Amino acid sequence: MDELVRYGCLLGGKRLRPALLLLTAQALGGRVTADQITLATVVEMIHTATLVHDDVLDDARMRRHLATVNARWDNEASVLLGDFLFTHAFYLASTLDSVIGCRLIGRATNLVCEGELRQKGTKGRFDVSEAEYFEIIAAKTAALTAVSCELGALTSGADESLVRDMEHFGRELGIAFQIADDLLDVLGEEQVTGKSLGTDLEKQKPTLPVIRGLARAEPAERQRLLKMLQAPQGANGALVACLQRLGAIDETRQQASEYARRARQRLQRLEATPARDVLTMLCEFVVSRPM
Amino acid sequence: MDELVRYGCLLGGKRLRPALLLLTAQALGGRVTADQITLATVVEMIHTATLVHDDVLDDARMRRHLATVNARWDNEASVLLGDFLFTHAFYLASTLDSVIGCRLIGRATNLVCEGELRQKGTKGRFDVSEAEYFEIIAAKTAALTAVSCELGALTSGADESLVRDMEHFGRELGIAFQIADDLLDVLGEEQVTGKSLGTDLEKQKPTLPVIRGLARAEPAERQRLLKMLQAPQGANGALVACLQRLGAIDETRQQASEYARRARQRLQRLEATPARDVLTMLCEFVVSRPM
Repeated sequence: MDELVRYGCLLGGKRLRPALLLLTAQALGGRVTADQITLATVVEMIHTATLVHDDVLDDARMRRHLATVNARWDNEASVLLGDFLFTHAFYLASTLDSVIGCRLIGRATNLVCEGELRQKGTKGRFDVSEAEYFEIIAAKTAALTAVSCELGALTSGADESLVRDMEHFGRELGIAFQIADDLLDVLGEEQVTGKSLGTDLEKQKPTLPVIRGLARAEPAERQRLLKMLQAPQGANGALVACLQRLGAIDETRQQASEYARRARQRLQRLEATPARDVLTMLCEFVVSRPM
Repeated sequence: MDELVRYGCLLGGKRLRPALLLLTAQALGGRVTADQITLATVVEMIHTATLVHDDVLDDARMRRHLATVNARWDNEASVLLGDFLFTHAFYLASTLDSVIGCRLIGRATNLVCEGELRQKGTKGRFDVSEAEYFEIIAAKTAALTAVSCELGALTSGADESLVRDMEHFGRELGIAFQIADDLLDVLGEEQVTGKSLGTDLEKQKPTLPVIRGLARAEPAERQRLLKMLQAPQGANGALVACLQRLGAIDETRQQASEYARRARQRLQRLEATPARDVLTMLCEFVVSRPM
Protein backbone atom coordinates (compact mmCIF):
# COMPACT_ATOMS: atom_id res chain seq x y z
CA MET A 1 0.00 0.00 0.00
CA ASP A 2 2.68 2.46 1.08
CA GLU A 3 4.90 1.28 -1.74
CA LEU A 4 2.15 1.85 -4.31
CA VAL A 5 1.34 5.33 -3.03
CA ARG A 6 5.01 6.29 -2.86
CA TYR A 7 5.56 5.10 -6.42
CA GLY A 8 2.35 6.74 -7.64
CA CYS A 9 3.61 10.08 -6.37
CA LEU A 10 6.74 9.83 -8.54
CA LEU A 11 4.55 9.72 -11.61
CA GLY A 12 3.35 13.28 -11.08
CA GLY A 13 6.12 15.61 -12.05
CA LYS A 14 5.53 19.24 -12.81
CA ARG A 15 3.15 19.82 -9.89
CA LEU A 16 1.51 22.47 -12.05
CA ARG A 17 -1.84 22.50 -10.23
CA PRO A 18 -0.55 23.00 -6.66
CA ALA A 19 1.89 25.58 -8.03
CA LEU A 20 -1.04 27.46 -9.56
CA LEU A 21 -3.00 27.37 -6.32
CA LEU A 22 -0.11 28.53 -4.14
CA LEU A 23 1.15 31.18 -6.58
CA THR A 24 -2.35 32.61 -6.93
CA ALA A 25 -2.64 32.69 -3.14
CA GLN A 26 0.69 34.48 -2.86
CA ALA A 27 -0.10 36.92 -5.67
CA LEU A 28 -3.44 37.87 -4.16
CA GLY A 29 -2.94 37.43 -0.42
CA GLY A 30 0.78 38.03 -0.06
CA ARG A 31 1.26 34.73 1.74
CA VAL A 32 0.35 31.05 1.82
CA THR A 33 -1.70 29.53 4.66
CA ALA A 34 -1.72 25.98 6.01
CA ASP A 35 -5.23 25.47 4.57
CA GLN A 36 -3.99 26.49 1.14
CA ILE A 37 -1.16 23.96 1.36
CA THR A 38 -3.75 21.31 2.20
CA LEU A 39 -5.89 22.32 -0.79
CA ALA A 40 -2.82 22.32 -3.06
CA THR A 41 -2.07 18.77 -1.87
CA VAL A 42 -5.66 17.75 -2.57
CA VAL A 43 -5.66 18.98 -6.18
CA GLU A 44 -2.36 17.21 -6.87
CA MET A 45 -3.67 13.97 -5.36
CA ILE A 46 -6.79 14.21 -7.50
CA HIS A 47 -4.63 14.85 -10.54
CA THR A 48 -2.38 11.89 -9.74
CA ALA A 49 -5.46 9.68 -9.32
CA THR A 50 -6.68 10.65 -12.78
CA LEU A 51 -3.21 9.99 -14.26
CA VAL A 52 -3.07 6.54 -12.72
CA HIS A 53 -6.52 5.69 -14.10
CA ASP A 54 -5.67 7.29 -17.47
CA ASP A 55 -2.68 5.01 -17.80
CA VAL A 56 -4.99 2.03 -17.32
CA LEU A 57 -7.45 3.32 -19.93
CA ASP A 58 -4.68 4.13 -22.41
CA ASP A 59 -2.69 1.01 -21.53
CA ALA A 60 0.33 3.34 -21.31
CA ARG A 61 3.63 1.74 -20.23
CA MET A 62 5.77 4.79 -19.43
CA ARG A 63 5.26 8.14 -17.73
CA ARG A 64 7.97 10.56 -16.65
CA HIS A 65 10.68 8.09 -17.63
CA LEU A 66 9.18 5.51 -15.25
CA ALA A 67 7.08 2.42 -15.81
CA THR A 68 3.41 3.21 -15.11
CA VAL A 69 1.66 1.53 -12.16
CA ASN A 70 -0.23 -0.80 -14.52
CA ALA A 71 3.03 -1.72 -16.27
CA ARG A 72 4.97 -2.32 -13.05
CA TRP A 73 2.10 -3.92 -11.09
CA ASP A 74 -1.20 -4.47 -12.92
CA ASN A 75 -4.54 -2.85 -13.77
CA GLU A 76 -6.05 -4.00 -10.50
CA ALA A 77 -3.41 -2.15 -8.47
CA SER A 78 -3.88 0.94 -10.64
CA VAL A 79 -7.65 1.07 -10.24
CA LEU A 80 -7.38 0.68 -6.47
CA LEU A 81 -4.51 3.14 -6.10
CA GLY A 82 -6.50 5.73 -8.07
CA ASP A 83 -9.57 5.15 -5.89
CA PHE A 84 -7.46 5.42 -2.77
CA LEU A 85 -5.98 8.73 -3.93
CA PHE A 86 -9.42 10.12 -4.89
CA THR A 87 -11.00 9.27 -1.59
CA HIS A 88 -8.01 10.31 0.49
CA ALA A 89 -7.95 13.64 -1.31
CA PHE A 90 -11.60 14.27 -0.45
CA TYR A 91 -11.03 13.20 3.12
CA LEU A 92 -8.12 15.63 3.37
CA ALA A 93 -10.24 18.46 1.91
CA SER A 94 -12.93 17.70 4.48
CA THR A 95 -10.52 18.18 7.40
CA LEU A 96 -10.70 21.94 6.75
CA ASP A 97 -13.35 23.97 8.56
CA SER A 98 -14.90 25.31 5.38
CA VAL A 99 -16.80 23.01 3.04
CA ILE A 100 -15.94 25.20 0.02
CA GLY A 101 -12.79 23.28 -0.92
CA CYS A 102 -14.66 19.97 -1.00
CA ARG A 103 -17.47 21.53 -2.97
CA LEU A 104 -15.40 23.24 -5.68
CA ILE A 105 -12.90 20.39 -6.01
CA GLY A 106 -15.76 17.86 -6.05
CA ARG A 107 -17.49 19.67 -8.87
CA ALA A 108 -14.26 20.14 -10.84
CA THR A 109 -13.29 16.48 -10.45
CA ASN A 110 -16.70 15.49 -11.63
CA LEU A 111 -16.19 17.59 -14.75
CA VAL A 112 -12.84 15.88 -15.29
CA CYS A 113 -14.52 12.45 -15.26
CA GLU A 114 -17.33 13.68 -17.47
CA GLY A 115 -14.77 15.07 -19.93
CA GLU A 116 -12.93 11.74 -19.98
CA LEU A 117 -16.19 9.87 -20.59
CA ARG A 118 -17.14 12.23 -23.42
CA GLN A 119 -13.68 11.85 -24.92
CA LYS A 120 -14.11 8.12 -24.84
CA GLY A 121 -17.35 8.61 -26.79
CA THR A 122 -15.45 10.40 -29.57
CA LYS A 123 -13.08 7.47 -30.12
CA GLY A 124 -12.55 6.97 -33.85
CA ARG A 125 -14.91 9.87 -34.67
CA PHE A 126 -12.35 12.09 -36.42
CA ASP A 127 -15.15 14.29 -37.74
CA VAL A 128 -15.83 15.59 -34.23
CA SER A 129 -16.30 19.38 -34.25
CA GLU A 130 -13.67 21.72 -32.82
CA ALA A 131 -16.37 23.04 -30.48
CA GLU A 132 -16.80 19.57 -29.01
CA TYR A 133 -13.03 19.10 -28.76
CA PHE A 134 -12.73 22.34 -26.80
CA GLU A 135 -15.62 21.43 -24.50
CA ILE A 136 -13.94 18.12 -23.74
CA ILE A 137 -10.50 19.53 -22.92
CA ALA A 138 -12.08 22.39 -20.94
CA ALA A 139 -13.60 19.67 -18.75
CA LYS A 140 -10.96 16.96 -18.61
CA THR A 141 -7.91 19.22 -18.18
CA ALA A 142 -8.89 22.82 -17.55
CA ALA A 143 -11.51 22.22 -14.84
CA LEU A 144 -8.75 21.30 -12.39
CA THR A 145 -6.34 24.12 -13.31
CA ALA A 146 -9.27 26.57 -13.14
CA VAL A 147 -10.38 25.41 -9.71
CA SER A 148 -6.78 25.54 -8.43
CA CYS A 149 -6.53 29.24 -9.28
CA GLU A 150 -10.08 29.94 -8.12
CA LEU A 151 -9.38 28.38 -4.71
CA GLY A 152 -6.05 30.18 -4.36
CA ALA A 153 -7.81 33.50 -4.94
CA LEU A 154 -10.94 32.73 -2.93
CA THR A 155 -9.09 31.61 0.19
CA SER A 156 -6.92 34.75 0.01
CA GLY A 157 -10.02 36.90 0.43
CA ALA A 158 -9.80 38.36 -3.10
CA ASP A 159 -12.94 40.11 -4.31
CA GLU A 160 -15.36 38.24 -6.55
CA SER A 161 -14.21 39.78 -9.85
CA LEU A 162 -10.57 38.91 -9.19
CA VAL A 163 -11.59 35.37 -8.23
CA ARG A 164 -13.33 35.08 -11.62
CA ASP A 165 -10.26 36.49 -13.39
CA MET A 166 -8.10 33.86 -11.77
CA GLU A 167 -10.57 31.08 -12.54
CA HIS A 168 -10.50 32.13 -16.22
CA PHE A 169 -6.71 32.37 -16.09
CA GLY A 170 -6.53 28.79 -14.86
CA ARG A 171 -8.98 27.54 -17.46
CA GLU A 172 -7.22 29.22 -20.39
CA LEU A 173 -3.83 28.09 -19.16
CA GLY A 174 -5.17 24.54 -18.89
CA ILE A 175 -6.57 24.64 -22.42
CA ALA A 176 -3.25 25.98 -23.79
CA PHE A 177 -1.46 23.22 -21.91
CA GLN A 178 -3.72 20.49 -23.29
CA ILE A 179 -3.45 21.66 -26.90
CA ALA A 180 0.35 21.69 -26.54
CA ASP A 181 0.16 18.22 -24.99
CA ASP A 182 -1.89 16.90 -27.91
CA LEU A 183 0.68 18.30 -30.31
CA LEU A 184 3.46 16.71 -28.28
CA ASP A 185 1.75 13.34 -28.58
CA VAL A 186 1.78 13.60 -32.38
CA LEU A 187 5.25 15.10 -32.77
CA GLY A 188 7.31 14.31 -29.73
CA GLU A 189 9.87 11.67 -29.02
CA GLU A 190 9.58 9.28 -26.14
CA GLN A 191 13.15 9.92 -24.94
CA VAL A 192 12.51 13.63 -24.48
CA THR A 193 9.08 13.59 -22.91
CA GLY A 194 9.43 10.43 -20.87
CA LYS A 195 6.00 9.12 -21.76
CA SER A 196 4.53 6.76 -24.29
CA LEU A 197 3.74 8.80 -27.39
CA GLY A 198 1.37 8.41 -30.27
CA THR A 199 -1.06 6.87 -27.76
CA ASP A 200 -3.72 9.41 -28.75
CA LEU A 201 -3.48 8.21 -32.34
CA GLU A 202 -3.32 4.59 -31.33
CA LYS A 203 -6.35 5.06 -29.09
CA GLN A 204 -8.16 6.77 -31.97
CA LYS A 205 -8.58 10.01 -30.00
CA PRO A 206 -9.38 12.93 -32.28
CA THR A 207 -7.08 15.79 -31.24
CA LEU A 208 -6.79 19.32 -32.56
CA PRO A 209 -3.97 18.83 -35.11
CA VAL A 210 -5.96 15.97 -36.65
CA ILE A 211 -9.35 17.71 -36.56
CA ARG A 212 -7.83 20.83 -38.10
CA GLY A 213 -5.91 18.81 -40.71
CA LEU A 214 -9.06 17.01 -41.83
CA ALA A 215 -10.92 20.31 -42.06
CA ARG A 216 -8.17 21.79 -44.26
CA ALA A 217 -7.76 18.76 -46.59
CA GLU A 218 -9.28 18.37 -50.06
CA PRO A 219 -11.61 15.32 -50.39
CA ALA A 220 -8.91 13.03 -51.83
CA GLU A 221 -6.31 13.96 -49.24
CA ARG A 222 -8.96 13.68 -46.55
CA GLN A 223 -9.57 10.05 -47.54
CA ARG A 224 -5.84 9.28 -47.42
CA LEU A 225 -5.58 10.96 -44.01
CA LEU A 226 -8.53 9.00 -42.62
CA LYS A 227 -6.94 5.79 -43.83
CA MET A 228 -3.69 6.63 -42.03
CA LEU A 229 -5.63 7.50 -38.89
CA GLN A 230 -7.49 4.21 -38.92
CA ALA A 231 -4.22 2.25 -38.93
CA PRO A 232 -1.72 4.59 -37.29
CA GLN A 233 1.10 2.11 -36.54
CA GLY A 234 4.20 3.15 -38.39
CA ALA A 235 2.34 5.78 -40.41
CA ASN A 236 3.29 8.48 -37.90
CA GLY A 237 5.98 10.09 -40.09
CA ALA A 238 3.74 10.29 -43.15
CA LEU A 239 0.86 11.53 -41.03
CA VAL A 240 2.89 14.32 -39.46
CA ALA A 241 4.24 15.36 -42.89
CA CYS A 242 0.69 15.50 -44.21
CA LEU A 243 -0.62 17.53 -41.25
CA GLN A 244 2.40 19.85 -41.59
CA ARG A 245 1.73 20.41 -45.29
CA LEU A 246 -1.90 21.26 -44.53
CA GLY A 247 -0.78 23.87 -42.00
CA ALA A 248 -2.55 22.01 -39.18
CA ILE A 249 0.57 21.75 -37.02
CA ASP A 250 1.30 25.48 -37.17
CA GLU A 251 -2.34 26.41 -36.64
CA THR A 252 -2.54 24.14 -33.60
CA ARG A 253 0.62 25.72 -32.17
CA GLN A 254 -0.89 29.17 -32.76
CA GLN A 255 -4.12 28.11 -31.07
CA ALA A 256 -2.19 27.06 -27.96
CA SER A 257 -0.31 30.38 -27.97
CA GLU A 258 -3.58 32.28 -28.32
CA TYR A 259 -4.99 30.65 -25.18
CA ALA A 260 -1.73 31.30 -23.35
CA ARG A 261 -1.95 34.97 -24.40
CA ARG A 262 -5.54 35.25 -23.10
CA ALA A 263 -4.46 33.70 -19.82
CA ARG A 264 -1.60 36.20 -19.50
CA GLN A 265 -4.02 39.08 -19.99
CA ARG A 266 -6.08 37.94 -17.00
CA LEU A 267 -3.12 38.79 -14.79
CA GLN A 268 -3.12 42.47 -15.73
CA ARG A 269 -5.14 43.63 -12.71
CA LEU A 270 -2.81 41.87 -10.28
CA GLU A 271 -0.20 43.93 -8.43
CA ALA A 272 3.36 43.39 -9.60
CA THR A 273 4.80 40.68 -7.32
CA PRO A 274 7.29 37.87 -7.82
CA ALA A 275 4.34 35.42 -7.67
CA ARG A 276 2.60 37.24 -10.52
CA ASP A 277 5.84 37.10 -12.53
CA VAL A 278 6.00 33.34 -12.11
CA LEU A 279 2.35 32.99 -13.19
CA THR A 280 3.20 35.04 -16.29
CA MET A 281 6.18 32.80 -17.02
CA LEU A 282 3.95 29.74 -16.67
CA CYS A 283 1.90 31.01 -19.64
CA GLU A 284 5.10 30.79 -21.66
CA PHE A 285 6.15 27.48 -20.18
CA VAL A 286 3.00 25.49 -20.94
CA VAL A 287 3.24 26.10 -24.69
CA SER A 288 7.01 25.79 -25.04
CA ARG A 289 7.75 22.39 -23.56
CA PRO A 290 10.06 20.28 -25.72
CA MET A 291 8.09 19.27 -28.79
CA MET B 1 -23.00 9.32 -19.80
CA ASP B 2 -26.63 9.40 -18.62
CA GLU B 3 -27.13 5.90 -20.00
CA LEU B 4 -24.10 4.60 -18.10
CA VAL B 5 -25.16 6.18 -14.80
CA ARG B 6 -28.73 4.98 -15.20
CA TYR B 7 -27.53 1.46 -15.90
CA GLY B 8 -24.98 1.58 -13.08
CA CYS B 9 -27.78 2.37 -10.64
CA LEU B 10 -29.63 -0.83 -11.56
CA LEU B 11 -26.63 -2.84 -10.40
CA GLY B 12 -27.17 -1.81 -6.79
CA GLY B 13 -30.09 -3.64 -5.41
CA LYS B 14 -30.67 -4.06 -1.71
CA ARG B 15 -29.86 -0.43 -0.86
CA LEU B 16 -28.68 -1.74 2.50
CA ARG B 17 -26.44 1.24 3.35
CA PRO B 18 -28.96 4.04 2.78
CA ALA B 19 -31.58 1.92 4.56
CA LEU B 20 -29.24 1.67 7.57
CA LEU B 21 -28.63 5.42 7.60
CA LEU B 22 -32.31 6.36 7.33
CA LEU B 23 -33.55 3.70 9.76
CA THR B 24 -30.95 4.75 12.32
CA ALA B 25 -32.04 8.35 11.85
CA GLN B 26 -35.68 7.39 12.33
CA ALA B 27 -34.96 5.18 15.32
CA LEU B 28 -32.94 7.88 17.08
CA GLY B 29 -34.50 11.14 15.86
CA GLY B 30 -38.05 10.05 15.13
CA ARG B 31 -37.84 11.43 11.59
CA VAL B 32 -35.68 11.76 8.49
CA THR B 33 -34.32 15.12 7.31
CA ALA B 34 -33.42 16.27 3.80
CA ASP B 35 -29.73 16.26 4.76
CA GLN B 36 -30.00 12.65 5.86
CA ILE B 37 -31.55 11.70 2.53
CA THR B 38 -28.59 13.39 0.82
CA LEU B 39 -26.12 11.47 2.98
CA ALA B 40 -27.99 8.20 2.31
CA THR B 41 -27.70 8.91 -1.41
CA VAL B 42 -23.99 9.61 -1.01
CA VAL B 43 -23.21 6.31 0.72
CA GLU B 44 -25.15 4.37 -1.92
CA MET B 45 -23.31 6.17 -4.73
CA ILE B 46 -19.98 5.38 -3.10
CA HIS B 47 -21.04 1.76 -2.72
CA THR B 48 -22.14 1.56 -6.36
CA ALA B 49 -18.80 3.07 -7.43
CA THR B 50 -16.92 0.35 -5.54
CA LEU B 51 -19.16 -2.35 -7.08
CA VAL B 52 -18.50 -1.07 -10.59
CA HIS B 53 -14.74 -1.07 -9.96
CA ASP B 54 -14.93 -4.45 -8.20
CA ASP B 55 -16.53 -5.96 -11.28
CA VAL B 56 -13.57 -4.72 -13.34
CA LEU B 57 -11.07 -6.18 -10.87
CA ASP B 58 -12.92 -9.49 -10.65
CA ASP B 59 -13.74 -9.52 -14.36
CA ALA B 60 -17.30 -10.39 -13.27
CA ARG B 61 -19.90 -10.70 -16.05
CA MET B 62 -23.16 -10.67 -14.08
CA ARG B 63 -24.56 -8.82 -11.08
CA ARG B 64 -28.19 -8.80 -9.94
CA HIS B 65 -29.26 -10.80 -12.99
CA LEU B 66 -27.78 -8.09 -15.27
CA ALA B 67 -24.63 -7.88 -17.33
CA THR B 68 -22.00 -5.83 -15.45
CA VAL B 69 -20.87 -2.49 -16.93
CA ASN B 70 -17.56 -4.02 -18.03
CA ALA B 71 -19.42 -6.89 -19.70
CA ARG B 72 -21.96 -4.67 -21.47
CA TRP B 73 -19.56 -1.83 -22.30
CA ASP B 74 -15.88 -2.27 -21.36
CA ASN B 75 -13.34 -1.76 -18.58
CA GLU B 76 -12.72 1.84 -19.68
CA ALA B 77 -16.39 2.74 -19.21
CA SER B 78 -16.40 1.00 -15.83
CA VAL B 79 -13.34 2.81 -14.49
CA LEU B 80 -14.71 6.18 -15.58
CA LEU B 81 -18.24 5.51 -14.33
CA GLY B 82 -16.84 4.51 -10.94
CA ASP B 83 -14.71 7.66 -10.80
CA PHE B 84 -17.71 9.77 -11.79
CA LEU B 85 -19.84 8.23 -9.04
CA PHE B 86 -17.07 8.68 -6.42
CA THR B 87 -16.51 12.32 -7.23
CA HIS B 88 -20.20 13.13 -7.65
CA ALA B 89 -20.89 11.55 -4.27
CA PHE B 90 -18.29 13.74 -2.59
CA TYR B 91 -19.59 16.79 -4.39
CA LEU B 92 -23.09 15.98 -3.16
CA ALA B 93 -21.85 15.53 0.42
CA SER B 94 -20.12 18.90 0.20
CA THR B 95 -23.38 20.69 -0.66
CA LEU B 96 -24.42 20.25 2.99
CA ASP B 97 -23.54 23.00 5.46
CA SER B 98 -21.62 20.69 7.76
CA VAL B 99 -18.31 19.19 6.68
CA ILE B 100 -18.84 16.13 8.92
CA GLY B 101 -20.52 14.01 6.23
CA CYS B 102 -17.62 14.56 3.82
CA ARG B 103 -15.13 13.83 6.56
CA LEU B 104 -16.63 10.60 7.89
CA ILE B 105 -17.59 9.25 4.46
CA GLY B 106 -14.17 10.23 3.07
CA ARG B 107 -12.40 8.33 5.83
CA ALA B 108 -14.68 5.30 5.48
CA THR B 109 -14.27 5.18 1.71
CA ASN B 110 -10.56 5.37 2.15
CA LEU B 111 -10.72 2.36 4.46
CA VAL B 112 -12.76 0.52 1.82
CA CYS B 113 -10.02 1.10 -0.79
CA GLU B 114 -7.32 0.15 1.68
CA GLY B 115 -9.22 -3.06 2.51
CA GLU B 116 -9.52 -3.89 -1.19
CA LEU B 117 -5.80 -3.27 -1.70
CA ARG B 118 -4.90 -5.44 1.27
CA GLN B 119 -7.22 -8.16 0.01
CA LYS B 120 -5.46 -8.01 -3.33
CA GLY B 121 -2.20 -8.59 -1.44
CA THR B 122 -3.56 -11.82 0.03
CA LYS B 123 -4.31 -13.32 -3.38
CA GLY B 124 -3.30 -16.96 -3.42
CA ARG B 125 -2.09 -16.74 0.19
CA PHE B 126 -4.51 -19.26 1.69
CA ASP B 127 -2.46 -19.37 4.90
CA VAL B 128 -3.57 -15.83 5.75
CA SER B 129 -4.62 -15.57 9.42
CA GLU B 130 -8.23 -15.18 10.47
CA ALA B 131 -7.23 -11.95 12.19
CA GLU B 132 -6.05 -10.53 8.87
CA TYR B 133 -9.20 -11.76 7.13
CA PHE B 134 -11.35 -9.96 9.70
CA GLU B 135 -9.31 -6.77 9.44
CA ILE B 136 -9.77 -6.81 5.69
CA ILE B 137 -13.54 -7.31 5.70
CA ALA B 138 -13.96 -4.81 8.54
CA ALA B 139 -12.35 -2.27 6.17
CA LYS B 140 -13.65 -3.23 2.74
CA THR B 141 -17.26 -3.92 3.73
CA ALA B 142 -18.01 -2.88 7.28
CA ALA B 143 -16.47 0.63 7.16
CA LEU B 144 -19.33 1.83 4.96
CA THR B 145 -22.13 0.13 6.90
CA ALA B 146 -20.60 1.47 10.14
CA VAL B 147 -20.39 5.04 8.86
CA SER B 148 -23.97 4.84 7.55
CA CYS B 149 -25.28 4.06 11.03
CA GLU B 150 -22.89 6.52 12.69
CA LEU B 151 -24.07 9.35 10.43
CA GLY B 152 -27.75 8.45 10.91
CA ALA B 153 -27.28 8.69 14.67
CA LEU B 154 -25.00 11.72 14.68
CA THR B 155 -27.24 13.85 12.48
CA SER B 156 -30.22 12.98 14.68
CA GLY B 157 -28.50 14.59 17.66
CA ALA B 158 -28.04 11.30 19.52
CA ASP B 159 -25.59 11.42 22.41
CA GLU B 160 -22.01 10.21 21.90
CA SER B 161 -22.46 6.79 23.50
CA LEU B 162 -25.50 5.99 21.34
CA VAL B 163 -23.61 7.15 18.23
CA ARG B 164 -20.84 4.67 19.15
CA ASP B 165 -23.41 1.90 19.70
CA MET B 166 -24.84 2.50 16.26
CA GLU B 167 -21.40 2.64 14.65
CA HIS B 168 -20.58 -0.75 16.22
CA PHE B 169 -23.99 -2.06 15.14
CA GLY B 170 -23.21 -1.10 11.53
CA ARG B 171 -19.73 -2.62 11.66
CA GLU B 172 -20.89 -5.94 13.14
CA LEU B 173 -23.80 -6.13 10.73
CA GLY B 174 -21.39 -5.46 7.84
CA ILE B 175 -19.01 -8.18 8.99
CA ALA B 176 -21.90 -10.66 9.35
CA PHE B 177 -23.05 -9.71 5.86
CA GLN B 178 -19.60 -10.20 4.34
CA ILE B 179 -19.04 -13.60 5.93
CA ALA B 180 -22.45 -14.70 4.62
CA ASP B 181 -21.51 -13.31 1.22
CA ASP B 182 -18.24 -15.27 1.18
CA LEU B 183 -20.16 -18.43 2.01
CA LEU B 184 -22.65 -17.64 -0.76
CA ASP B 185 -19.79 -17.38 -3.24
CA VAL B 186 -18.60 -20.89 -2.38
CA LEU B 187 -22.02 -22.53 -2.10
CA GLY B 188 -24.57 -20.54 -4.06
CA GLU B 189 -26.00 -20.92 -7.49
CA GLU B 190 -25.82 -18.20 -10.09
CA GLN B 191 -29.53 -18.44 -10.92
CA VAL B 192 -30.55 -17.71 -7.33
CA THR B 193 -28.14 -14.94 -6.46
CA GLY B 194 -27.94 -13.25 -9.85
CA LYS B 195 -24.19 -12.78 -9.75
CA SER B 196 -21.16 -14.64 -10.98
CA LEU B 197 -20.19 -17.16 -8.33
CA GLY B 198 -17.02 -18.93 -7.42
CA THR B 199 -15.21 -15.75 -8.41
CA ASP B 200 -13.55 -15.57 -4.99
CA LEU B 201 -12.06 -19.02 -5.58
CA GLU B 202 -11.18 -18.24 -9.16
CA LYS B 203 -9.54 -14.99 -8.09
CA GLN B 204 -7.63 -16.91 -5.39
CA LYS B 205 -9.16 -14.84 -2.58
CA PRO B 206 -8.79 -16.57 0.78
CA THR B 207 -12.22 -16.40 2.46
CA LEU B 208 -13.35 -17.62 5.87
CA PRO B 209 -14.71 -21.07 4.87
CA VAL B 210 -11.38 -21.82 3.16
CA ILE B 211 -9.16 -20.39 5.90
CA ARG B 212 -11.12 -22.30 8.54
CA GLY B 213 -11.12 -25.49 6.45
CA LEU B 214 -7.34 -25.39 6.05
CA ALA B 215 -6.92 -24.80 9.77
CA ARG B 216 -9.08 -27.84 10.59
CA ALA B 217 -7.50 -30.22 8.04
CA GLU B 218 -4.84 -32.87 8.80
CA PRO B 219 -1.56 -32.39 6.82
CA ALA B 220 -2.52 -34.82 4.01
CA GLU B 221 -6.00 -33.37 3.55
CA ARG B 222 -4.55 -29.89 3.74
CA GLN B 223 -2.32 -30.68 0.76
CA ARG B 224 -5.26 -32.01 -1.24
CA LEU B 225 -7.29 -28.93 -0.34
CA LEU B 226 -4.50 -26.57 -1.39
CA LYS B 227 -4.21 -28.40 -4.70
CA MET B 228 -7.95 -27.94 -5.35
CA LEU B 229 -7.70 -24.27 -4.41
CA GLN B 230 -4.84 -23.69 -6.81
CA ALA B 231 -6.91 -25.00 -9.74
CA PRO B 232 -10.50 -24.34 -8.69
CA GLN B 233 -12.28 -24.82 -12.05
CA GLY B 234 -14.67 -27.70 -11.82
CA ALA B 235 -13.38 -28.77 -8.43
CA ASN B 236 -16.08 -26.74 -6.68
CA GLY B 237 -18.25 -29.72 -5.74
CA ALA B 238 -15.35 -31.68 -4.26
CA LEU B 239 -14.06 -28.58 -2.51
CA VAL B 240 -17.41 -27.84 -0.88
CA ALA B 241 -17.78 -31.47 0.20
CA CYS B 242 -14.33 -31.34 1.76
CA LEU B 243 -15.00 -28.06 3.58
CA GLN B 244 -18.34 -29.46 4.77
CA ARG B 245 -16.71 -32.59 6.13
CA LEU B 246 -14.17 -30.49 8.01
CA GLY B 247 -16.99 -28.48 9.63
CA ALA B 248 -15.75 -25.27 8.01
CA ILE B 249 -19.08 -24.47 6.36
CA ASP B 250 -21.05 -24.79 9.59
CA GLU B 251 -18.46 -22.88 11.59
CA THR B 252 -18.47 -20.07 9.04
CA ARG B 253 -22.26 -19.89 9.19
CA GLN B 254 -22.06 -19.77 13.00
CA GLN B 255 -19.46 -17.03 12.84
CA ALA B 256 -21.80 -14.89 10.68
CA SER B 257 -24.66 -15.53 13.12
CA GLU B 258 -22.45 -14.56 16.04
CA TYR B 259 -21.69 -11.15 14.49
CA ALA B 260 -25.39 -10.68 13.69
CA ARG B 261 -26.21 -11.47 17.33
CA ARG B 262 -23.67 -8.92 18.58
CA ALA B 263 -25.14 -6.33 16.22
CA ARG B 264 -28.66 -7.04 17.50
CA GLN B 265 -27.50 -6.50 21.09
CA ARG B 266 -26.30 -2.98 20.22
CA LEU B 267 -29.94 -2.04 19.62
CA GLN B 268 -30.99 -2.79 23.20
CA ARG B 269 -30.74 0.78 24.44
CA LEU B 270 -32.92 2.12 21.62
CA GLU B 271 -36.56 2.86 22.32
CA ALA B 272 -39.05 0.41 20.81
CA THR B 273 -40.02 1.90 17.43
CA PRO B 274 -40.94 0.39 14.06
CA ALA B 275 -37.52 1.58 12.77
CA ARG B 276 -35.71 -0.35 15.52
CA ASP B 277 -37.77 -3.43 14.66
CA VAL B 278 -36.64 -3.21 11.05
CA LEU B 279 -32.99 -2.83 12.13
CA THR B 280 -33.44 -5.95 14.28
CA MET B 281 -34.90 -7.81 11.32
CA LEU B 282 -31.94 -6.75 9.19
CA CYS B 283 -29.64 -8.65 11.55
CA GLU B 284 -31.62 -11.76 10.62
CA PHE B 285 -31.78 -10.89 6.93
CA VAL B 286 -28.06 -10.45 6.29
CA VAL B 287 -27.23 -13.99 7.41
CA SER B 288 -30.24 -15.77 5.91
CA ARG B 289 -30.09 -14.79 2.26
CA PRO B 290 -30.54 -17.72 -0.11
CA MET B 291 -27.40 -19.84 0.12
